[in-house]
Amino acid sequence: MIDLSLVSDGGVGWLDASGPESHLVLSTRVRLARNLERRPFTVRSTDADREGVLQAVQDVAKKTVGLGHAHLIRIDQLPRIDRQLLHERHLVSKELAVPDAVDPPRAGAALLLQDGVGLMVNEEDHLRVQALTSGLSLGLAWGKVKSLDTELGQQLAFAFHPEFGYLTSCPTNVGTGLRASILIHLPGLVLTKEINKVLQSLVQVGLTFRGLYGEGSEVVGNFFQLSNQTTLGKSEADLLDHLAKIVHEVVGYEERAREVLLRDAPGVIEDKVWRAYGLLRYARSLSFEEAMNLLSGVRLGVGLGLIPNVGMYALNKVLVFTQPAHLATEAGAASSERELAVGRARYVRRTLEEEAGR
Amino acid sequence: MIDLSLVSDGGVGWLDASGPESHLVLSTRVRLARNLERRPFTVRSTDADREGVLQAVQDVAKKTVGLGHAHLIRIDQLPRIDRQLLHERHLVSKELAVPDAVDPPRAGAALLLQDGVGLMVNEEDHLRVQALTSGLSLGLAWGKVKSLDTELGQQLAFAFHPEFGYLTSCPTNVGTGLRASILIHLPGLVLTKEINKVLQSLVQVGLTFRGLYGEGSEVVGNFFQLSNQTTLGKSEADLLDHLAKIVHEVVGYEERAREVLLRDAPGVIEDKVWRAYGLLRYARSLSFEEAMNLLSGVRLGVGLGLIPNVGMYALNKVLVFTQPAHLATEAGAASSERELAVGRARYVRRTLEEEAGR
Repeated sequence: MIDLSLVSDGGVGWLDASGPESHLVLSTRVRLARNLERRPFTVRSTDADREGVLQAVQDVAKKTVGLGHAHLIRIDQLPRIDRQLLHERHLVSKELAVPDAVDPPRAGAALLLQDGVGLMVNEEDHLRVQALTSGLSLGLAWGKVKSLDTELGQQLAFAFHPEFGYLTSCPTNVGTGLRASILIHLPGLVLTKEINKVLQSLVQVGLTFRGLYGEGSEVVGNFFQLSNQTTLGKSEADLLDHLAKIVHEVVGYEERAREVLLRDAPGVIEDKVWRAYGLLRYARSLSFEEAMNLLSGVRLGVGLGLIPNVGMYALNKVLVFTQPAHLATEAGAASSERELAVGRARYVRRTLEEEAGR
Repeated sequence: MIDLSLVSDGGVGWLDASGPESHLVLSTRVRLARNLERRPFTVRSTDADREGVLQAVQDVAKKTVGLGHAHLIRIDQLPRIDRQLLHERHLVSKELAVPDAVDPPRAGAALLLQDGVGLMVNEEDHLRVQALTSGLSLGLAWGKVKSLDTELGQQLAFAFHPEFGYLTSCPTNVGTGLRASILIHLPGLVLTKEINKVLQSLVQVGLTFRGLYGEGSEVVGNFFQLSNQTTLGKSEADLLDHLAKIVHEVVGYEERAREVLLRDAPGVIEDKVWRAYGLLRYARSLSFEEAMNLLSGVRLGVGLGLIPNVGMYALNKVLVFTQPAHLATEAGAASSERELAVGRARYVRRTLEEEAGR
């Protein structure tokens, strides 16, 4: 089993709800896609090519401030459960850790991790530099990523075209190679049925949305990942400013939706959030989807000040620690769906009991 | 408002879960139908006829041991909410207190109440003597009723036919005038889908079943009233023995059904009962039907030893005290459906909190 206690914060410092707007925004993620010059892209590479990339990156990384003390995780040598766990902790992409097409992942797939900043090696691109931070904190996340990118770029020759910018395996990343996303909870807009209007307007201004676990993942529990679609033709600063501006607008819409709900149907909302709390506090079996939906209700109740004695940090942790690989790791054994549902309910119950007892 | 604190136990001593089999059987009710000779049956009587009946009964009752210190409640002079409350407390029949056809009830409608024994006057029959006792206690209830019936019969000439026995307004009561019923909770048989088979077999042996509130009332929360159908052609002792025998069989079926559930699906049952507890403990609005169904789950959990810290007495009281008239009386005002649902949830929540804190 992988020992994430070696990583300073277990890789989940971004869950601590310390950042701005963290009553609505769980986390901010910024990543840059980079490739090394004169080496084939990962999807067209041999094992030896990728081992070469990893070696080159390691040699450079150890001389940087950002990754000088990094923990190296050889994704390609991990059992599936550990790779799944890293993905559930949002530390690596599904593509790198639990790819649909090739499993186990390609030789050379690796992660370098230090202080909440990660460098994925031999993902879809040679390098994916990423930072996860708490709340709505694009500047902070960008600063971390940019600084590491600068350090790495001084030693590594990145594939770069004077007209197109950074070259990437998939054309949607060409240019800045920047993807910034915000994980936000929007139950108010869902309850007032305004969510589709809001999501459509996001698409019109060049943003895109996904569920809790990235590309292709369904929306559950009213958690949305909002991110930039465009990576080309604008500066990094412009892309981040635009995303920040739109997310602030969405935060405003959500807050107004909540005011409307509290004004027009306070009894219904109160009943809804407390029922969610009651079920999470006492159920003995919870599917992933039900747990997410009930957590959404409790989070709304906490955000509205209706439910005391539950911290956002605890709710954030539940989102991650009730995923299958986390539960199976906790149980110390592979688990059936039924066992996972029982383990999930136990974890949630204990968490809420601890919170109530604080 | 009616003041039931004047009655020794508020008329709800039968809720205290002290009787035999009270984990399954809430209460036993035995009643005798009697009419006074040479007076028209209630349905064909004038106001003066019924006042005459009431006067005659009162004169005699005050000289008996069973009703010598009885509290007289003039049903015909009570506001509807108070009559409804008496009915919810199972102290009077719907026919007497909140009749569909004539409302307010007929002049002369009254209840004499002393130590858990009641005498309804000018109901469908001139007299209905009834006793309510805790658990499966036909002997106890019958003893109370019989003793009062004997006392009254020594002073009052009952309409009696040498061949048919006691004469009653409705032919289904002719003979002994005896109806004995058992309020029993059968969630195990409902969950194992054996309930219909059991209910059909009851009908075949001359018993009948109803919901929580007597004739015509729907079954909610898996609470069934089982009673004798036949009143004619058998002695009281035979009727009671037969009912007791069958109810003991039903108790056995229910216990076996519970064993099967615990053996085959312990996780499902545990989850079900705790979810019911969680919702009752935290919901802010509960309809009557939902409350009854959730109470059924919690009662099952308590009976199976899965849920500690909840007493059967508390659960029994909730059945009665979350009825509309009780909630409206508690609120001190007429209440809308929505207000009742909120008051019901509040009462249930407080009860379970108190139980958990004991």
